[in-house]
Amino acid sequence: MSPVSEDVRDGRLLRGLRSRRTIVRHAVDTASLEGLDGLSFGRLATDLDVGKSSIQTLFATKEKLQLAVIEAAREAFEEAVVRPALAEPRGAERLRALVERWLAYAEQPLFPGGCFWAANLPEFDSRPGPVRDMLAGQQRAWRERIAAELRHSHGAGTTAGLDADLTAFQIDAVLTAANTAMRLGDDAAAAKVRRVLDSLLAPASGGG
Amino acid sequence: MSPVSEDVRDGRLLRGLRSRRTIVRHAVDTASLEGLDGLSFGRLATDLDVGKSSIQTLFATKEKLQLAVIEAAREAFEEAVVRPALAEPRGAERLRALVERWLAYAEQPLFPGGCFWAANLPEFDSRPGPVRDMLAGQQRAWRERIAAELRHSHGAGTTAGLDADLTAFQIDAVLTAANTAMRLGDDAAAAKVRRVLDSLLAPASGGG
Repeated sequence: MSPVSEDVRDGRLLRGLRSRRTIVRHAVDTASLEGLDGLSFGRLATDLDVGKSSIQTLFATKEKLQLAVIEAAREAFEEAVVRPALAEPRGAERLRALVERWLAYAEQPLFPGGCFWAANLPEFDSRPGPVRDMLAGQQRAWRERIAAELRHSHGAGTTAGLDADLTAFQIDAVLTAANTAMRLGDDAAAAKVRRVLDSLLAPASGGG
Repeated sequence: MSPVSEDVRDGRLLRGLRSRRTIVRHAVDTASLEGLDGLSFGRLATDLDVGKSSIQTLFATKEKLQLAVIEAAREAFEEAVVRPALAEPRGAERLRALVERWLAYAEQPLFPGGCFWAANLPEFDSRPGPVRDMLAGQQRAWRERIAAELRHSHGAGTTAGLDADLTAFQIDAVLTAANTAMRLGDDAAAAKVRRVLDSLLAPASGGG
């Protein structure tokens, strides 16, 4: 083949990647508002003014589209919440940075419906399959990240006696509840999270 | 009118009430699994093998059906979780009874999809309207019930220094997270809740 035809093919490939990204990005927003079940090839085609058959060609099945959307949400979350916090020293400081970034992510928000997992896990938690597995795996990874920072701050002696996994479960639970509260118009939701975090990071005094 | 025709009318009314209850009860189960959005007159008619038009006559609009379902879920929750706990003395004991009843309600479960509010609030929290208002109001009432028992136990001197509203927010958040964890097959979810409750009810020791 001539270099020219390769250029043409590359151009098509690149446009294909770009349009795939555009579709997935729009689908993430839709899923954050109306759930992953709200996604359909037909609706995306109408929203984005492209042919339904080209979307179908790109993703093959609704489940594959949902999995692509979940992965894209994870990447956006990593970019907005996790990566900036990695600049902080490990332990309590990084944990506080993660929580502050998370609050900004839920408040601003990155996705129009707020936290992507809070919106979608309840919809799929009773429905076994790859979509549920991927959502649950990402939630687990997030909790493990919190627990790792707690263990680090524990090692530094600031949070003696803390069960890192249980505390991570609690912090994640409070973040998720705050996300719902924000959607319902509770202006004090972020302040509640900060107070809970303070109480959990305060030096333990005695039993438990 | 003759007494006979009154009997006939009463019979119809009674059958109407019974079928309304049957439909709503089935709709609660559907909504706990697939969300209030998953409800439709057509689907209920197929599931229950009745005419779509009779369901439509009973509820008029999908929104009215959703509101009837939310109210029925609240009644079932009161019956299963709240009423039995009222036998316990006010304060920490009643709070523990509420939490134990709640864990049984999420584990057994009363609704096939687990906690009705955990399944439906995330779906509607970004969508203003009567459905969201009713779901949010019921969540608020549940948290206020928890806070009231905390204040009572506070008054008894067992949980000095506790902010009842913040602690109620935390307890509700952990219950909701445990509900999701149970749906995902986490056998330790109930134990986590009990440990968090113990730590929150433990006598405060100093600052915060």
